[in-house]
Amino acid sequence: MTRLHDPSVHTFASDNYAGAHPEVLQAIVDAAGGHVGSYGADPYTQRLAEVVVETFGEGATIDPVLTGTGANVAALQALTPRWAAVICATTAHVYTDEGGAPERLGGLKLLTVPTPDGKLTPELIDRQAYGWGDQQRPQPLAVTITQSTELGTVYTPDEIRAVTDHAHTLGMRVHLDGARLANAAASLGVPLRAITRDVGVDSVSFGGTKNGLVLGESVVTFSEEARAGLVYLRKMDAQLASKMRFVSAQFLAMLEGDLWLRSATRANTMAARLAAGLATLPGVTVTQAVDANAVFVVLPPETVEPLRAAHHFYDWNRATGEVRLMCSFDTTEAHVDRFVEDARTLVG
Amino acid sequence: MTRLHDPSVHTFASDNYAGAHPEVLQAIVDAAGGHVGSYGADPYTQRLAEVVVETFGEGATIDPVLTGTGANVAALQALTPRWAAVICATTAHVYTDEGGAPERLGGLKLLTVPTPDGKLTPELIDRQAYGWGDQQRPQPLAVTITQSTELGTVYTPDEIRAVTDHAHTLGMRVHLDGARLANAAASLGVPLRAITRDVGVDSVSFGGTKNGLVLGESVVTFSEEARAGLVYLRKMDAQLASKMRFVSAQFLAMLEGDLWLRSATRANTMAARLAAGLATLPGVTVTQAVDANAVFVVLPPETVEPLRAAHHFYDWNRATGEVRLMCSFDTTEAHVDRFVEDARTLVG
Amino acid sequence: MTRLHDPSVHTFASDNYAGAHPEVLQAIVDAAGGHVGSYGADPYTQRLAEVVVETFGEGATIDPVLTGTGANVAALQALTPRWAAVICATTAHVYTDEGGAPERLGGLKLLTVPTPDGKLTPELIDRQAYGWGDQQRPQPLAVTITQSTELGTVYTPDEIRAVTDHAHTLGMRVHLDGARLANAAASLGVPLRAITRDVGVDSVSFGGTKNGLVLGESVVTFSEEARAGLVYLRKMDAQLASKMRFVSAQFLAMLEGDLWLRSATRANTMAARLAAGLATLPGVTVTQAVDANAVFVVLPPETVEPLRAAHHFYDWNRATGEVRLMCSFDTTEAHVDRFVEDARTLVG
Amino acid sequence: MTRLHDPSVHTFASDNYAGAHPEVLQAIVDAAGGHVGSYGADPYTQRLAEVVVETFGEGATIDPVLTGTGANVAALQALTPRWAAVICATTAHVYTDEGGAPERLGGLKLLTVPTPDGKLTPELIDRQAYGWGDQQRPQPLAVTITQSTELGTVYTPDEIRAVTDHAHTLGMRVHLDGARLANAAASLGVPLRAITRDVGVDSVSFGGTKNGLVLGESVVTFSEEARAGLVYLRKMDAQLASKMRFVSAQFLAMLEGDLWLRSATRANTMAARLAAGLATLPGVTVTQAVDANAVFVVLPPETVEPLRAAHHFYDWNRATGEVRLMCSFDTTEAHVDRFVEDARTLVG
Repeated sequence: MTRLHDPSVHTFASDNYAGAHPEVLQAIVDAAGGHVGSYGADPYTQRLAEVVVETFGEGATIDPVLTGTGANVAALQALTPRWAAVICATTAHVYTDEGGAPERLGGLKLLTVPTPDGKLTPELIDRQAYGWGDQQRPQPLAVTITQSTELGTVYTPDEIRAVTDHAHTLGMRVHLDGARLANAAASLGVPLRAITRDVGVDSVSFGGTKNGLVLGESVVTFSEEARAGLVYLRKMDAQLASKMRFVSAQFLAMLEGDLWLRSATRANTMAARLAAGLATLPGVTVTQAVDANAVFVVLPPETVEPLRAAHHFYDWNRATGEVRLMCSFDTTEAHVDRFVEDARTLVG
Repeated sequence: MTRLHDPSVHTFASDNYAGAHPEVLQAIVDAAGGHVGSYGADPYTQRLAEVVVETFGEGATIDPVLTGTGANVAALQALTPRWAAVICATTAHVYTDEGGAPERLGGLKLLTVPTPDGKLTPELIDRQAYGWGDQQRPQPLAVTITQSTELGTVYTPDEIRAVTDHAHTLGMRVHLDGARLANAAASLGVPLRAITRDVGVDSVSFGGTKNGLVLGESVVTFSEEARAGLVYLRKMDAQLASKMRFVSAQFLAMLEGDLWLRSATRANTMAARLAAGLATLPGVTVTQAVDANAVFVVLPPETVEPLRAAHHFYDWNRATGEVRLMCSFDTTEAHVDRFVEDARTLVG
Repeated sequence: MTRLHDPSVHTFASDNYAGAHPEVLQAIVDAAGGHVGSYGADPYTQRLAEVVVETFGEGATIDPVLTGTGANVAALQALTPRWAAVICATTAHVYTDEGGAPERLGGLKLLTVPTPDGKLTPELIDRQAYGWGDQQRPQPLAVTITQSTELGTVYTPDEIRAVTDHAHTLGMRVHLDGARLANAAASLGVPLRAITRDVGVDSVSFGGTKNGLVLGESVVTFSEEARAGLVYLRKMDAQLASKMRFVSAQFLAMLEGDLWLRSATRANTMAARLAAGLATLPGVTVTQAVDANAVFVVLPPETVEPLRAAHHFYDWNRATGEVRLMCSFDTTEAHVDRFVEDARTLVG
Repeated sequence: MTRLHDPSVHTFASDNYAGAHPEVLQAIVDAAGGHVGSYGADPYTQRLAEVVVETFGEGATIDPVLTGTGANVAALQALTPRWAAVICATTAHVYTDEGGAPERLGGLKLLTVPTPDGKLTPELIDRQAYGWGDQQRPQPLAVTITQSTELGTVYTPDEIRAVTDHAHTLGMRVHLDGARLANAAASLGVPLRAITRDVGVDSVSFGGTKNGLVLGESVVTFSEEARAGLVYLRKMDAQLASKMRFVSAQFLAMLEGDLWLRSATRANTMAARLAAGLATLPGVTVTQAVDANAVFVVLPPETVEPLRAAHHFYDWNRATGEVRLMCSFDTTEAHVDRFVEDARTLVG
């Protein structure tokens, strides 16, 4: 196969426009030769199970899957009975960006709550947390939160604890969509477990692809109850990799050392630099806290298309002119500074 | 990440115990740097579209997915309306090995027919092809066949044409589960299109993983009708890779040159050699035609466990003692000869 | 069986607290003896087909079902392919009161729009009508409106025409949830077809239970396309009555003469009388137009529980004190006047 | 509404060609006036709950639903988690006659076993009872049997006990499709509980329509576990009647006295008389034990169409000429004797 693209190109479009980290590629190559068991009966998946216990504590389990949608659906199915509804933010990826898979593939009714910043609170949860025993209402039996959120904000450990305490008191379980969990932990300067298990989360969609993997997601659980039937649901949801060694090896590359932290820190730091640079420009408004690797910003209208042509990014809200700038594990200071300079030139 | 396995180990357990071909690994590495569009808007996926036209003819399309189950479900959903049933062999992977995903994820009722060799015929199809207009019967609107079959046999082009002509006459579409399509084409010495498009098949689950990819499956269609809604169904079925370049690059490595043919031919040739070697031994019965890379064989009972310990393989039918021996792209004459020698020694 | 209730009791709780109209009961009794074909192959279902053509015009069809939820799900499934989403008001019964059946049983993603009065307009539809071709968004391919709405308001024929023209222009079909269609037609003084077929609606959930049937709903369609697969979907959705004569006979009792109109007019007239009576009282605010048989009203707080104890009704919005008062085919002037008098006494 | 059929017509086509018993009609009429709570909050549903305890013992519950398919799906969903498969006979109604609803609406994979007489045994169950812990196999977690069976045979209490003991030992629950439960109990001369609760069955689809109701089915359970979420599943499966009083009143008419037994006994006795009469004719072979109200018989080929024209019945197996003759609560000795005489005349 011939290389068909220019590897020097960088964008601010999405952390899945980025490619794969060299250490991840090396792990795939190292895992590739000879025969090992399929469907998870291989030494890489076995080692990953140990690493996850080291990372999240005794009793933690990991089940590799293939897409974030697959992780969310399977995790929520395992966490709830057939008649459950799940409370989420109106901006939640599970509600807006998964093609209806949670409802149609997962049989999960989603009950949404508008939020100012992508974060649920006990008060916001209460807007949908009612109707238990009402036979006509899908029963709210789980809450799902996203960390870092779709708006680039990060829950503090205390904020998550408030959610999980409240949910558990009401008999609901808590799932965390951690497609960008590493970015959140890096932002807070805490271990991964400090924003999941240690604050009462029941299960996590722990993402890899957005943090430099070729392709790999997973479900991490902290109790037998949270993992009930998960391996069967994974298959039923078409998420079972036959050559699972390749997914597990990528996660090992990320988790055994500190690659997850290095990559996430890089992305976060670049986003902070970008926001700081842009904030100094006239007519620019940063609209959300830049806690992780996303910058939500309103740019002067005349600058948007020239900047987009050079750096590629997506609109978030066309009505307000808000755009989303994503940084990745491979974003450099030079990339950021060029964006800020281009913007400065355009605003005159 | 440290290598955790011995790459010199070979088994006859499954073609997904095998790893990935070095040319496939190189394609992943070459595709990895810099930013490209996600969800298929990348030059590798675009090039793959061209290669698929070159391979299957004008109008052919390919949509990469992540698992064979996902390919089968999405392809069959695209091919049929909500009320459809699908006729398949009782041995079909879609019926026996996919965790109920076709029924539960896909909403597809499967109507099964026993076969002697894994192959459907017009006569066998007729055992389930009835009841159109009967409001209580799921309507048979598609047939799915597997090539090469789960029993290691291969349909000739004429046999497939008989199935598609019959099905089309009855108003049913034809899907082909081609997890091992390359093995079938290599066995017959024909191009891939000769056993799919040219003989009336409407859509194909075209597999890569079992032929040396790290992870990659796809749906190939030959008409707009057969692809109706497929991209939405792919997302809804949690089969949409964000960094699709990596799946497409693997398929390019396989299809741009003749890697698909080299790998499949190797696996088939080794299976033929294995069957020929075993057939000379007393008490050994090869139970199915060895058309592709699988050998179904009844071994003398006392040899089974010693051979399994050394070479790893799976039982097919415990009642009869039938076992399945799979060859892969990386099976060598030495692997085969060692198995035969071990068997010879054991039978005395 | 002994009668266990007092048939003189009346409430304002719901039109399904009411029983069945004597003419409906007589139809059941008349249809009951001897043998006729099951699953719709009976003279009552055949006659109903004719009556529906007389009512809605040439090409109209009716398929009796068992619940309003079942009617909505089957009708919407028939109207759309597997990957469709359906736009509806946030207050739509299909979204709020059907236990998630549309999503989970029907595989339909619902895209909701807040409305002031339960009615969609072209402008409101546009808030969700976008994203065709975006593979990650469930494709908006249908709109469903409720007539009369869940807020007791009624679309004029022109308002519906605006919705259907707009939807059709965008390639979307239009379903109408007519659980209370008769009330709307009676309110407007037009035939049933004037607010459905004649203004471009593609299919209707035509309700009977809320208008005096024992148990009976139906799907009425106006084209072959709108009815595609409906009889299979009806079975698959567990909505096929074996002794269908009994459902069809009830619809005949309602539609052959003018019972549908008499019953609906009665309920509407009583609601108007109730609203008019309450509107004269201090501290009472009628919050929605009383177009059909529902009165939404904020009552003086101290009157709510005494009135509820005597007349039974449900809260609509506990925050604002808004309650819903429903009139039925069997509501009398005496029932209404007693309510108003009791309220007058309580407000002093 | 005008009567459109001749109530003196009788057929042997199906017990749902029959109409409704006069006592059932009277119950509907008696329940019809005035207002009561909807969705089950009415005195008839409350009284039914008591009657079911009297009938099946302390802890028994009943949830009325609308179709046999709906009863089976909801009951099996309540009995099993999302990843369950259900073992049934190949002839089971749930597999052959429900439009794929169990799989598609219920998300239940069905694992079928051929039987000679429609009855499962521990040995037959074992053909599918394996693979627990195998992540690729839908997990067999329930068994469903039909009583009386689709072939007109009846399990003895001991035969059911053998099934339930075996299933429970293997960690599977047992559901009984009792669309014709009354016929089985009448045949055996035992109370309803003797072939359900007392022999270890976990939940029952308890039918009414085939035994003389207008329209009414139900799910009866014997433990909290077996009823988990059932009321939510009933709504989600579109089986919740708003005016539930009418379904419950019919069941009361059937269960409060001995109507269920009188009607079932009549149907059974007529079937026995029919079989006995036919068995004396040359060229007639009764092919299954006539335990309940069905007669499976091979008639001399030349007699089939003349008899069908006069008495209406359905083919069971066209290859063998086997037909099915069903008797109903309203079948009389005259109906039976006329059939036998006509047959006698035709065979010469």
